[in-house]
Order: sequence, then C-alpha cells, then structure tokens
Amino acid sequence: MSDKNNENYDTLIHNSDPTHRADTNDPSAHQDQNKTEVPYDYRKFEPSPTGEELHRWQREHIKKDDQSKEGYPLNVIVDPAMREMYQVVHNQGLTNVFDRFSEQQPQCNFCAPGLSCQLCANGPCRITKKAQRGVCGVDAHVMVARNFTYRHTTIGTSANCYHALQAARTLRAAGSNPESGLKIREPEKLKKYAEFLGMDKNKPIEQLAVEFADFFIEDLHRPNFMESKLVEAFAPPRRKELWRKLGLYPGGAFSEVGFAQTKCMTNLGADPVDFLLTCVRLGVANEFQGLWPLDLLQEILIGTQEITQRKQNMGLLDPNKVNIITNGHMPLLAHVVIDLASTEEWQSKAKKAGATGLQIMGHVCEGQQLINYSGTHEMSALAGQEGEWLSEEYLLATGCVDLFMFDYNCTVPTLPLYAERFGTKLMSVDPVIRFPDTEALDFKPEQMIKQAEECLERAIEFFKKRKEENRNVYVPPHVSDCMVGFSTESVKQALGGSWQPLIDQIANGNIRGIATLVGCTTARYGQGGSNAFKLAKALIERDVLVLSGGCVSAVFEYTGLCKPEAANEAGDGLKQVCQTLGIPPVLSYGACVDVGKMTHTAMELADALDVDTNALPLVIGAPEYLEQKAVADACTAVAMGWLVHVAPVPSVTGSEVVVKTLTETTETLGLGKMMIELDAEKAADIYIEHIEKKRAGLGLSANLPNP
Amino acid sequence: MSDKNNENYDTLIHNSDPTHRADTNDPSAHQDQNKTEVPYDYRKFEPSPTGEELHRWQREHIKKDDQSKEGYPLNVIVDPAMREMYQVVHNQGLTNVFDRFSEQQPQCNFCAPGLSCQLCANGPCRITKKAQRGVCGVDAHVMVARNFTYRHTTIGTSANCYHALQAARTLRAAGSNPESGLKIREPEKLKKYAEFLGMDKNKPIEQLAVEFADFFIEDLHRPNFMESKLVEAFAPPRRKELWRKLGLYPGGAFSEVGFAQTKCMTNLGADPVDFLLTCVRLGVANEFQGLWPLDLLQEILIGTQEITQRKQNMGLLDPNKVNIITNGHMPLLAHVVIDLASTEEWQSKAKKAGATGLQIMGHVCEGQQLINYSGTHEMSALAGQEGEWLSEEYLLATGCVDLFMFDYNCTVPTLPLYAERFGTKLMSVDPVIRFPDTEALDFKPEQMIKQAEECLERAIEFFKKRKEENRNVYVPPHVSDCMVGFSTESVKQALGGSWQPLIDQIANGNIRGIATLVGCTTARYGQGGSNAFKLAKALIERDVLVLSGGCVSAVFEYTGLCKPEAANEAGDGLKQVCQTLGIPPVLSYGACVDVGKMTHTAMELADALDVDTNALPLVIGAPEYLEQKAVADACTAVAMGWLVHVAPVPSVTGSEVVVKTLTETTETLGLGKMMIELDAEKAADIYIEHIEKKRAGLGLSANLPNP
Repeated sequence: MSDKNNENYDTLIHNSDPTHRADTNDPSAHQDQNKTEVPYDYRKFEPSPTGEELHRWQREHIKKDDQSKEGYPLNVIVDPAMREMYQVVHNQGLTNVFDRFSEQQPQCNFCAPGLSCQLCANGPCRITKKAQRGVCGVDAHVMVARNFTYRHTTIGTSANCYHALQAARTLRAAGSNPESGLKIREPEKLKKYAEFLGMDKNKPIEQLAVEFADFFIEDLHRPNFMESKLVEAFAPPRRKELWRKLGLYPGGAFSEVGFAQTKCMTNLGADPVDFLLTCVRLGVANEFQGLWPLDLLQEILIGTQEITQRKQNMGLLDPNKVNIITNGHMPLLAHVVIDLASTEEWQSKAKKAGATGLQIMGHVCEGQQLINYSGTHEMSALAGQEGEWLSEEYLLATGCVDLFMFDYNCTVPTLPLYAERFGTKLMSVDPVIRFPDTEALDFKPEQMIKQAEECLERAIEFFKKRKEENRNVYVPPHVSDCMVGFSTESVKQALGGSWQPLIDQIANGNIRGIATLVGCTTARYGQGGSNAFKLAKALIERDVLVLSGGCVSAVFEYTGLCKPEAANEAGDGLKQVCQTLGIPPVLSYGACVDVGKMTHTAMELADALDVDTNALPLVIGAPEYLEQKAVADACTAVAMGWLVHVAPVPSVTGSEVVVKTLTETTETLGLGKMMIELDAEKAADIYIEHIEKKRAGLGLSANLPNP
Repeated sequence: MSDKNNENYDTLIHNSDPTHRADTNDPSAHQDQNKTEVPYDYRKFEPSPTGEELHRWQREHIKKDDQSKEGYPLNVIVDPAMREMYQVVHNQGLTNVFDRFSEQQPQCNFCAPGLSCQLCANGPCRITKKAQRGVCGVDAHVMVARNFTYRHTTIGTSANCYHALQAARTLRAAGSNPESGLKIREPEKLKKYAEFLGMDKNKPIEQLAVEFADFFIEDLHRPNFMESKLVEAFAPPRRKELWRKLGLYPGGAFSEVGFAQTKCMTNLGADPVDFLLTCVRLGVANEFQGLWPLDLLQEILIGTQEITQRKQNMGLLDPNKVNIITNGHMPLLAHVVIDLASTEEWQSKAKKAGATGLQIMGHVCEGQQLINYSGTHEMSALAGQEGEWLSEEYLLATGCVDLFMFDYNCTVPTLPLYAERFGTKLMSVDPVIRFPDTEALDFKPEQMIKQAEECLERAIEFFKKRKEENRNVYVPPHVSDCMVGFSTESVKQALGGSWQPLIDQIANGNIRGIATLVGCTTARYGQGGSNAFKLAKALIERDVLVLSGGCVSAVFEYTGLCKPEAANEAGDGLKQVCQTLGIPPVLSYGACVDVGKMTHTAMELADALDVDTNALPLVIGAPEYLEQKAVADACTAVAMGWLVHVAPVPSVTGSEVVVKTLTETTETLGLGKMMIELDAEKAADIYIEHIEKKRAGLGLSANLPNP
C-alpha cells in the first residue's frame, strides 16, 4: 500500500451497512439509501502483489487455468487494482458487476443460443422440441439471424457511425468557429485527405475543414440506394468489386440501418442468409463510414498517434489532487478539458481550493485514445489511462474521483448510486447519453472552451466538498508503465517510413503473422481479462505480433505486455524484432474504435504486397467481446476477408444454418469467417493454422519446428 | 358451400399425411416433404354460416365471451372463411398460426413483461427478486424502456419511413421515366402540395414530380441535428411548439433511428424516461416522414381514396380464373399488375391458358389500399380484398392461389412450405424482403411495366400447372359486401366540402366522438378478430364514429360493420347521421399505413375548430396490435396528444416507471398517453370517458342518459 493511502483505512468507506445493499427494487431507493450513516463493517482484503512480483503472479495464475465458478471472481480478475477494490466493494455488500454476474446464474437457455423472440404481441416465442416455430412461423434460423441483426449489428453500426458524425461536426466547428477550443492539430493530414477526396487543398484551412467535414456528414446520410462515396474513396478496389458482386456495397450508413431494421419486422425477412449478409453490408459501412472516419477526423483534431511511454491504472489517482476521470470513446471535449487543465491558470485554481494540482485520467477507450494521440503528449494534466470498463464501480469506490465525465459507452447504469455514495460529480457530455439524476452538459462543438471550463469548475467544487466532508479514500497502489501510441503512421515511421522492414520480418518468418486483439472484457467465467491475457501470451510466444485495441489494451498494459521488456516473453523471432526496434510484442493501437486504424494498417500492408486483404497472414480476435460495436466490427472483418475469433459464445448457436454461414460459407464467397473458441490455447492454435495457411498462399516459409 | 366448389371435396387437399407435419426441425425438410403422395385423411369440418345468418352468429358469439383456451382457436376466429380453412389445415396436421400459438404456451414470464435482456455477451440477463439488475447494472426500468425502443419503435419507424422512401422513388420514376408504367393520377394533388412546399407548381408535371419526390427523399436523410422540413411543413403549429420545448422535434428519420439505436447500446443510455421520449420523437418522424408522406405519394400515383362498394374475403377466389394475390403494404407494382390485367390483351392470354379470366385480390393492408384508392375503381381485374394476415396459410391451402406476390410485411415465414404443397408461385417484389427458395423480383420503379408483365406471366404459368396437375381446390364460399374508400378528402366531400356538418353532429351529441380502430389482429386468446369486432360494436352502439385501418378493417368488413345497414346497430344519434349520409358507422380508411390519413383528418378537424389536436374527442385504439409499426404509430399518437388504447399487453409491464410514464406522465407534458385494457367493454367505457372529458373541454354537451 502506498504511503499516501494507508491512513484510516479501517473507516475508509463511509456510511455503509453490510446488511443493506445499495440496490433495491424501488427505483427511487437510490435517492434515499445513503441517508443513514452506519459504520462500515470493514473486513481486511487481500492486497495484490505489485511490480515484477505482480507480473510473476499473473503468469503463474493463468497457467493454473483456475477460471471456474469456484473462486470467482478473484480467479478471473488479473488487474491488481480491481482485485483489491472488488473486495472492498463486495465486503460492503454493494451491487457490482462481478457479483451481479454470479446472481444472474444460471442464464436462460433459450436466449443464450438466440432461440427466443420478443418482437411481436403474439410472442414471446421460444424454439423447443415441441414448438419448432414461433407463432408467426419463424424457425430457429431466421429467429437467430434476425436477432443478430437488430440486437447487435444495427446498434453497433449506428454507434460507430454516430461517433464519426460527432467527430465530423466537431471538425466542422473547429473550422467554422476557430475560437471554440479545439484546434486543427494536423492541418497537413487534413490537406492530404481533402485532396484525396478531390478538394482543393490550398483553400484556407478553416474552410477546408468545413468542406471536409461536410463530405463525411453527407455520406453518412446518403440514401441506401446510392453508393457510399467514403467506401468508394477508402476501400480496397478488390474488395469493392467483390462487395458489388455480392450486393454488399452500402449506401449511407443511417439509411442502411433503417433498411436493415425494416427487414427485421415481424413477417418480413425470412431468409437467414440474407440477414447475415445484410450484417456484412453493415460491416462495410461500419468501417468506412464509422471507424475509419472517426479515427481520421479525431486525429486531425487531436493529433495522430505517436509512440510514447505512459502510465496506467487506478494508482494514478492522487487523493491530494483534483481528480477528473473522462470516460467513453469520443475524447473531444475531454481533450479541451486536458488542454485547459494543463495551464497555470487552472492549476492555480485547483491549488487555491487546497489541492496540490488538477489531473485528468482517461477511462476505458477514451483513456486509451488520450494517451495515444500526440496532441496530449505535451499536456501535463493528463496523468494516464485508468482502467477497463469492468472497473468503473470499483474506481468510484476509491472515493477519490471528483468528476466523472462521460460521453458515450461504456458507463455502467449503477454509477449514479456510486457517485452519490462516494462523493463523485457525474456529468454526461453528449446528447446521446442520459443518466437519471445526472447533469447533462451536451457537447456543443462550437462552445467547447466554455463547456470544458464548466467541467473543471465542477471538479474543483467536488474536490472541495470531498475535503470539507473529510471523506475517506483508498487508492490501490498499482500503476503500470507501458509503451503506447501505435498506429499506421507511427509504426511505419518506426520502421523508417516503409512497410518493407515489417514485410521482410514476416517473410523471413521472424514474425509469423499479425493478430489484432480487440474489444472489451467480460465478467464471465474464464474472462475478466484472463482470457485476453492468456491468448496474447500464447500468440507472442509463437512469434505472432499482437496489435491491441479496446479494454483488452488495459489488460495488456496492467499485465506488462505493453512494456518493451515483454519482448523477452516472445518467441525468438518476434523477440529479436522487438528488441531491435525497442518495442513491446503487443502494440497498443488504443481503443476499440481504433480497429479502424488496424484495418488501415492491414490495407496498407496488402497494398504494399499488392494482394487482396484476405491474403494477409492476419487474424482478428475479440477474446472477450461484450457489446454491439464489437459485433459490427466482426462483420467488418468478415467483409474484409479475415478470420475473426470471438469469445464468449455469441447468441447464434441455436441455428446450424447461422453458425455454418458465419463460420464457413462466407469464406467460400471471398469474405472472411468467424470462429468461436473459448479456450485460449486452442484459439492460438487456430490463429497459427490460419496464419500459416495464408503464409503458404503468399509463398512464404512454412513454420519451423519449435526449438 | 357455393356450387362451383362442392365437387370432389373429399380429395380436396393433395398429397398430405395427417401424421406428418409440414414442419420439421430440419431446415431443408420443406424441400422434400411434398414428395410423398399420401391420401389426405379428410375429416369433415363444420362449415360456417353465410350471409345474414353469419352476422347473427358473429353477434351472438361475441356476446358469449367464450374466448379462452378451451375451444381455441375456433372461439376467437369470427371470419367464416378462416374458420373453415383452419379446420382444413389443422386436420391435415400442417403447421399454422393458431396451432403454433397453442404450442408456444406457456410463454416466458421474463420476456413477456420486458424483463429479459439479450444485448451483450455478459447476458442474457433476467430481472428477478434475487437479481434485480442485469450484469451491467441495468435495472428493470431501463431494461424495459430500452427493449421497447430498439425492439419495437426503431423497427416500426424505419419500416414506415422505408415505405415512404420507396413511394417517393416511385413518384420520381413516374416523373423521370413516364413510360415506366405508373401514372401520375393526381396531378392536381401533386401541384397543390408542391406549391405548399414552396415549389413552382407550373413546371411540367414530370419535372415537378421529380422535384417533389426529391424533397421527401432528402428530408428522410437529413441529419438528426437539423429539423425535418416535412415536420415543419405538415405538423400543427401548436404541436411543433410543444415538441421543440420537449426536445422531441426530429431531424431526418433514418438519422434519428441511428441515434436511437446508439442510445440502446450496452452501458450507454440509462434513463428510462429518456428512452420513452426518444420513442415519442421517433413517433413524430414516423408520422410526418413516414405515414403521411407515403399516403400522399401513393395517392398521387394511385388516386386518392373514393367511397365505393367493394367485396371482401376468400370466396372471391375463382377456381376457373387465374388468381393473383398481391400482399403487403406498398401497392405500387400491384397497381400496375392490376392495370395491365384489366386489359383485353391479358385477359385473352389467361383465356388462352384455359382460364375464364385473370383476377387480382389484395391481401392484408395492400388489399385494403387497393380497394380504397380511386385509381383501381375502373380496373376490372381487381376482385377485392381477400383477408387479414392471420389467414395467409389458410388462403394458400385453398389450392386456388396461382401467384402470391408480396412486397413487404406481412408475409408469414411458412409460406414457402404452403406454396410448394399447394401449387402457388411465390414471388417477393421489394429488395427489403427475402424468402428462402423464393424468386425475388426486386421492385424497380423505372421498369414497372416489364416487372408487372413478368408477374402476370408467372401467374398464368402456375394456373396452367394447376390445371394440368388437376389439383383439387376448395374455396370457402364467403364474400362480404362493404362500403370503403374513406379518407380526409372523400369524407369531406361526402359532407359537402366542409367539416362543419360533422362538427355540428359532434356538437349536438349525435356523434359523441371518434375512435380510430387500427392495427393488426393477433392469435391470442380473446383476439383473432373477436376483440376488434366487439370493441367496434360497443363503440358504435354508444354513438362513437369508428374509423378503421389495417387488418381490423378486414374484421369489420367480414362482420358486416362496413355495410351501410350496420347503421341499425349504432346508437340513435350515430344511426341517424349514418342513415342520412348512407354510410356505415365504421368507415374504412383502409390499411394500417392509412393511420397517416386518419391523423390528417384529425388535424383538419382540429384546424376547423381552431384547437390543438389533443383537444379533440378522439381515441386511438389498437385492440389487436401485433407488430413494430403499430408501436411506432402508438408513439405518433402520444406525440399528437391522443389517448391510445393497446391490447394485448405490450412487453412493458415489468417496469412501473415505464408503465407510469406511458400511461400518465406523458399526458402531463401535453402529450397523449397509452392505456392497456384487454376487455372490450371496459375499453369502450374508457373511450367514452375520455371522449366526454374532451367534449367538456370543448364546451360541448355532456352525455345524455341512455334511452
């Protein structure tokens, strides 16, 4: 335990009662439940090891394969901070994500395989031996494929495209209202891509920004029967030809979503394969109108990723500072907040309030982006990345978060309970997100300075309150060092400005291939970070270079895989490459939304090799996928021709037709395919097999026997 | 039994086997199951009464209130044709909608009240006493409200707006390709509304059509942060003011759908009330970018509704004719098919094939539209409207349908099984709909004549096959006469060109108020047409004028309520009005999508009275609502300030907050509200109470004691 935190731990958590759960059936309960002050019945928790000892423990632990119900959840949690804080929260009897997972067991055997439909008033229907069709006549295959479409894919695609839209509006505001707070940090990038889209790059940069942004806004809103110009501009020609042939070339993303939702009506679409191909079509939109644009637009505003050393985890919280957590996926307002907070003016205001300073930590993907984008690298107020989504409740339970601002997913619905109990100011900052009893400061790109100032003021106010009320805090003393900031540009630059050195290393077999490990973490048995960690370890040991994005980046950071020293854990070939370049074997591309950048890298590699994207020795893995954007991203990968590994089991196993289509048939069409594998070792075998097959296709060396 | 059908009934149904269900677990089974020819084990069914005897039976039957599990489904089915054909199908052991409803009992107690979530990979989750939150932390209220949003409202809104989009594209094609087959049948209407939208109405009509259509296509694709121009143009000023105040003024519909879907992501929206208000906002888009535009655009192409006498029900099938059923909701290609089929040329082709002619019947809402729109009134090949969605499988089991073409919902997923077994050619005619093993003739508005010819050729081909194979047919001998074709314009015209006579009758109390009974029919206990029928009866008896739209229109047609003679069943006041005008007490506005026309009528009435729409003595009822468009329509009604009655119980009862918001809170904001009531008599009481309250608000006479 660090010095600054070891005082008064016995009375750390205020006004709690182990017999009283924070959660009750009465929706208004959370407004009253913190009124009674009952001394906290503190039971000692087991602290986690730190530093090298921690990494040793993590490695021994995953070897034990102790991931089942017994010992849950501490057996799945490999984040040292979360391990401690889980115990703190659990011992207080507060509702929290891991305990809720236990409470939800066993889960429904109809819903899990997708064999339940709740669309119409004749239902709900379940497919059983006795009843093999829903009331309307829908069979298992249509039911499963339709559920997959409207429950997962349209939601995920919408979300990524909405993100791109907000980024475009922000760039537009930066052009039309240059005093709004966000700068155009990458004018050369803007010019380059504007020219690529056929614009006159010599226009005044502000005017160019508006025109460029409008191109994206227009394309997102194109009718679905008119081909997307963004797909035309940015997708590889061989892919476009295939998509046209298969009817998978999308129009405007939102119109596509409306079209797909229409298909999902009761008594409308009845072809399971058509539903799945519709999802792949949405996957094309998801990439070229969502992920890639949002990355590009954000980079113009925040600075392209740059390789750097950063810090990660809950131990970054400093009880003596004003602590701001900025959570979500759109680090636009957050960027202005950090920019302002890094000024002497705002540091002084914090000091006047009794703090030693004011610092900002990014949570989940927003944090991953903030530490990667070059724009923040000179901003002193950014302390680092704080954690994965699973740790949110535990984070607030430290009592040390003064402001938690969130713009988008993932903010768990219980946070208002935690905020009230632990003295945190909650503030949502995008119109798409609404929390009960929570102030909404809707992101207005034209007024970002003003809005950022408001955030900082609230944070200072809540810091003062925390001190006045003499609230107890506990900060788990865990901080990881990590090398981050990888992206198409920064990797290429590290390689000396060309892909050839990487291609050479792949060709000579030092690097067998690439795996992008992306997505969330889940609370399931065998997951909680463990599965992602185990898989990454297995892959680097077999000379597969790993690119990461999403909450799994946090996992690789707190398990030490993003440190250059982790090269020692890689196979001989990869180790040699990493040591030569001074990089880790797991390259953090940042957030789940940086999947767009990984695709970008892969497309550039395919271009350099003059092959179609599906020829690359590449596997996309989502070893702990959670939500709908991950599903849309998997559909993107299938569109690009890649093998996509998903775990846990998605809700499609109720239909052989759906499983076969997604895991076999799509590949025969020139698309990629999915594979489901829960066991990390077995999954790694499949990755290697696929990579070796693709190597053979490219005429590259076969795998050498293991030394 | 009519003469033409009483031959060979004992061997009516070919190649069937009572021990072998048409449906099996093997998805490929339906390709093989009709191969074995086993003699049909015919058991006599109980024929339904016809004519006046039928109507007496129907009235006695609903008085008995015999609607429960015992006696199901014949106790709920009041359609004489469906009663007979249900028995025919059931006795053959074929899968069919009513038997499937029985097989699905009991239904899931978590899904039914909305207390189950399948969004993310931590789930599925259920709310129980033990587990009051999902794994992410979502409570019952958010879960229920979010389900309501993405499962129902976004799908329904998308579908109605997609329909409007297709109608706009068709009008555009009629302008840009005048030889495509569809005519601009209402140039004056086009000019009137074009001028209203600020266009120069004196342009060549083709050019005007293109410009007009583009206005709609553009508005549907407007970004959600820019106010919809269609809402601006067509919504009442008082409503717009309220919507602006409440944040319910939508932008483009598809962007709104994308925005709402984004809110539904895991760990994003957490405010149940925000979800519900988002649905109301979608309801505004649903009306002014979906329902009203699609009606207007179709009328320009097919002719505004006109009051006329028509025929309805399965007895319209003629075994000696080529029989085409056109099913769905977009009667655009169907209209061209009817136009061509009415020519001597195509009648001759049919005769050459051995038929006595070629006739078309519209099924479900498409049929309701086709008999209402004036464009078809001179087309001899349109035989009438055929039935509600529940009867589809029974319809094909007559063996007498040569071509079943369908453009959209509602086509049940089992139709390919029936088509193969009973010799029907199935053809889908819109790109949004895909059926396995079914030819897709995707609607190309520029090539409608060519496509319509293809449809007719297939129908003749399958008629020939039917005759060659000497297939047995049975046509239940039931045809109802009905007066249809009501709409804003035709009612106003019947009133002498002014709303004043109607207002006078409302003011003097002869008509207490208006109920629009709209929507589907369901297979549930107490429904199947019975509930809609019973409610309409109860309302007209109490001097409430009923406007109908959707499958319930078929119910009112086959129960005789759309005949002018039904005035005798109305209360004294309404009876007098109907008899004076020679109209029935239930005015069929046609399809569920004609809800847009009812809203139009109501807005004109409110204008004539110079009051806000929520001041009208009006109730919207969906006594047998089934699907997602109905939910979106209910959200429209709430936006307009109306009381909306829904039955069966929607999947929202798991949350008190959601129920209270929808049934109480929205009204306090100046919006409408929902009410759930399964019992028709009790529902009628609530309608009357609401109507009387609104009458009082307008200073109109209180209800007189019943005579």
